[in-house]
This record gives sequence, structure tokens and C-alpha cells, in this order.
Amino acid sequence: MEKISETIVRLQNPPLGDRGKLYVIKIGGNIIDDEKKLSSFLKSFAAIDEKKILVHGGGKLATKLAEKMGVEQKLVEGRRITDAETLKIVTMVYAGYVNKNIVAQLQSFNCNAMGLSGVDGDIILAHKRKHPVIDFGFVGDVDSVNAPLLKNLLNQNLSLVFAPITHDQTGQLLNTNADTIAQEIAKAMSGEYEVKLIYSFEKSGVLMDADDENTVISSINPGYYKELKAKEKIFAGMIPKLDNAFAALKSGVNKVIIGKAEELDKLMKGTAGTTINND
Amino acid sequence: MEKISETIVRLQNPPLGDRGKLYVIKIGGNIIDDEKKLSSFLKSFAAIDEKKILVHGGGKLATKLAEKMGVEQKLVEGRRITDAETLKIVTMVYAGYVNKNIVAQLQSFNCNAMGLSGVDGDIILAHKRKHPVIDFGFVGDVDSVNAPLLKNLLNQNLSLVFAPITHDQTGQLLNTNADTIAQEIAKAMSGEYEVKLIYSFEKSGVLMDADDENTVISSINPGYYKELKAKEKIFAGMIPKLDNAFAALKSGVNKVIIGKAEELDKLMKGTAGTTINND
Repeated sequence: MEKISETIVRLQNPPLGDRGKLYVIKIGGNIIDDEKKLSSFLKSFAAIDEKKILVHGGGKLATKLAEKMGVEQKLVEGRRITDAETLKIVTMVYAGYVNKNIVAQLQSFNCNAMGLSGVDGDIILAHKRKHPVIDFGFVGDVDSVNAPLLKNLLNQNLSLVFAPITHDQTGQLLNTNADTIAQEIAKAMSGEYEVKLIYSFEKSGVLMDADDENTVISSINPGYYKELKAKEKIFAGMIPKLDNAFAALKSGVNKVIIGKAEELDKLMKGTAGTTINND
Repeated sequence: MEKISETIVRLQNPPLGDRGKLYVIKIGGNIIDDEKKLSSFLKSFAAIDEKKILVHGGGKLATKLAEKMGVEQKLVEGRRITDAETLKIVTMVYAGYVNKNIVAQLQSFNCNAMGLSGVDGDIILAHKRKHPVIDFGFVGDVDSVNAPLLKNLLNQNLSLVFAPITHDQTGQLLNTNADTIAQEIAKAMSGEYEVKLIYSFEKSGVLMDADDENTVISSINPGYYKELKAKEKIFAGMIPKLDNAFAALKSGVNKVIIGKAEELDKLMKGTAGTTINND
């Protein structure tokens, strides 16, 4: 006869066929800075019945606060360097102001959200980026995601909201790319859930012509991606997103969708945005 | 025969005699501003074997940031008014910078901490303070604490770290007194745990002479408290703390201890500080 302890384990770990759905949604770009668009997006997010995780950046708020505080923003080859003062600012803005305001709004929409960063519950462990030429400062590259704890929190009917701050277990916080965090969470959870990873931002999807919102490519597979890159049809800023998307699919993520934050409902149904798939 | 679902409930809810210990510890005053003292305190906190919750304020960091940003601090009858800009600052400093840095340090001391505010998981619901004369702005008075969720998180072997920000379920964040939050959490958890509530700060305890650290009153019960107040032996700033302490005991908290943050080990053993008790 099955022991009670075994029953508990079995009830908590359904076989793969019974896997629930999980949405991992990155909200980015200018949406965070636009009160109305953000609120409308959060209303759509709150209405999702399935388990869900939101990952956000900080929009232009961090840059604005740095200006107010007289902290100079250092860029090397177009990439922001996170010195100690900048780390302080992004921790305040991302993990404090933006995270808690998003959570408060979700609560008002009857979505029981919990705001976290990677340091909380040791959920996202990272290391300071090593680069042969550029010292990025306190920028983190992700090593691991604590999937069992995330699963347990989701099982409390909590929707999780992540600020892109991680840590290295020596007490050092690290500023970390929010796209990467969304991807790493999606990958880590794909053993337990059928994961859909959605990158939502201000554009309608992957565009054939970066200036024309009517040129959304509805679907991209690896062969087509190669072709588009060869013909230089892909906007350079989109390439890391697409590389990440294909990497996520390889690691077990079910689907990656890229599109407009205001169209979250349609992105989830697959009637808007660009779907990245393997076949 | 007991159903499996009943067994799970029974295993998760031990009878009162089996109640574990829980420490709810408020860290306040100048400790947050003093890197060395804070680090030493956090090392002691990390070493506590029992379940534990830390509640912190923000020290002088919020005031310093407000000065840098040119936000004027408004005081009415010596009490800080939280206008919209100040709320933004305390949310950034308390829930962002201070909370995440404390959690990162605890992680480095092998304590799996999770940083939260009252809005996360709808843990602390509050309402905007109503006062016949003074408009305190976005200041919250606590209505309820979500004890079942706290218990579940503690059962994941997480130590919880609270920033004193709550919400009113309409999307509004509220700045809330950290002493009160510690007290409300302690009260709410006293049905499930034998709770010890520790207020740790820069003083050695409740002092007979506010200027002499060698005049710690080791124990105060309601009768003695009445006597001390009548003789005006109690420093005015200590009265709200003591009123809170007695209210907590009435609501089921096992013990309240007030003393120096650097002596946390001794406060827990009862060999330093002031113990507030009912008999």
C-alpha cells in the first residue's frame, strides 16, 4: 500500500500529461513609463486564469532618478555600466517603486500578486559578468533558478512579479537583464509546466520593416530566422530577443510570443504578435 | 479511517502543545544606517535556529534621498507627513534598497531570507489614517495580517524580511509604522506559534534614566508600568512602544523584549534588555 508521505509527493507532482499551463510574461520598453498603458496591461494580466509570472524592467524612471540625484550614467559601446551608485538606483526603482506599485495595482484587480527579486528566497543566483574588455560593473549573468520554490509559491495561488535584480550569494546585488530573467525562469519551469513565454513591449511583434507596424511576421522557425538574418531583414535590436527565444524553445519552453503589451489577450490566443516555434 | 486529505491537514496543523517558536524582530533606530552594526546584527539574526521574521524601517536614508531630490519633508506636531513624493521615496528606500540589501546579506550568512512588503501576497491590509485634525497623507493603519500565507512561507524554511509598506487594496501603497507592523504580525501569528516579539534598537532597553545606559529596567509588568508612568520615570518616546508591547501580550504574544540590536543573542536568552510581561 502506498505510504501517506508518498501520496503527498504524488499529489504534489502530477505526471507530465497533467502539467498545468504557466505564462511567463516580460513587460518592457515604454509601457512601464505610461501609466494608462501599464494599468490596462495589468488588468489583462490579472484576468489570466492560469498560473503566471510577470517580469518587469524599470523604464526610464531609473535614468530620471539618476539625473535628479546627479549620478552620471556611463555607457560603453552603447551598454549601460552599473556602478555602485547606479546599482543603488536600480534596486530602489526596480525592486522598490516599480515592483510594489505593480503589485498594488494587481491586488486592486483581484490578482493576488507577490513582488520578488532574484535575491528573495535565493530564487535567482547569478555571478558578476566577466568580459575580456568591458567592465560592466554590478551586472549579473544568471546561474540558476530555484524552480521548486517558484512552484510552491504558484501553488498558493500567487502570481509572481519579478524585478530584475539578482545576487551572487556573497551579499552582492546584481543588475540583470529582464529579458534574460524571463527566459531563465521559463526554462527552469518547463519541467513542471507547459510554459508560454511572452515578450510584450511597444512594438506589434517582429517587424519586416522596423518603421511599419503593419509588417509583423506572424511566425518564425529556425530556417526562416536564418534566411531573415542572411537578408538582413531583422532589426538588430531584435536579434538578442530572437536568439533567446530559440534557446528557450530548445530548453523545453512550449512557445515564445513577441508582441504589443496592449494586445496581451490576443498574444495569448496567438491572433497577434510573432510566434517563435521550432517547426 | 482518516482520509488522506485529513491527514495532510493534520500534519500541517499540529495541536497547540506542539507549537513551534517564532521570533518577530524589529530592527530600528540608527542600526540601519550603521553598516558594521547592521552586518553584525544580521549575522546574529541568521544564526537563529527557530522560525523568524525581521521588520525594518529605513533609518535616515529616506531623509537623505529626499534632500538630494529636493523633496521637502513636512512635519506636523513632530510627525512626518507622507505626501505622494515622500511615499515614492520611502517605497524605493524601504522596499527596494534597504530590504534587498538586508536579504542579500542574510543569504550570504546562509539564511534563506525573502524580502516582502505588506502588499505582497496581500499580507498586510491597511487603510489611510483618519485623523480629526492632521492629514498624515499616505500613512496606513493596519487592518489585518494574512497569517496562513506567512505560516506557509515559514514552512518553506524561509526567514521573512518586511519593509513597512502596506496597501489598501485599491492600488494605493501606504507608509506604515514598522513597530506596529512587527506587533500586528506577532499578534496574528500567536495562534500558530509561541511568539517572542523583540524590539531591537540603539538603546540597551527601557531606561530609568534616559541618559544612562546602566539604568535598564530588566522587567516591567502592568502594575509597575502604571507606577513608572505616574512618577514620569518613562521617557515619552518609549510610551507608544510599551503600550504596543502590552497590547501584544493581551493578544496572545508570549513575550516582548526591548533592547540593543548588538545584543540580540542576549535579548533572546533574556540576559539583556527589558522584558515586558503580564505577571
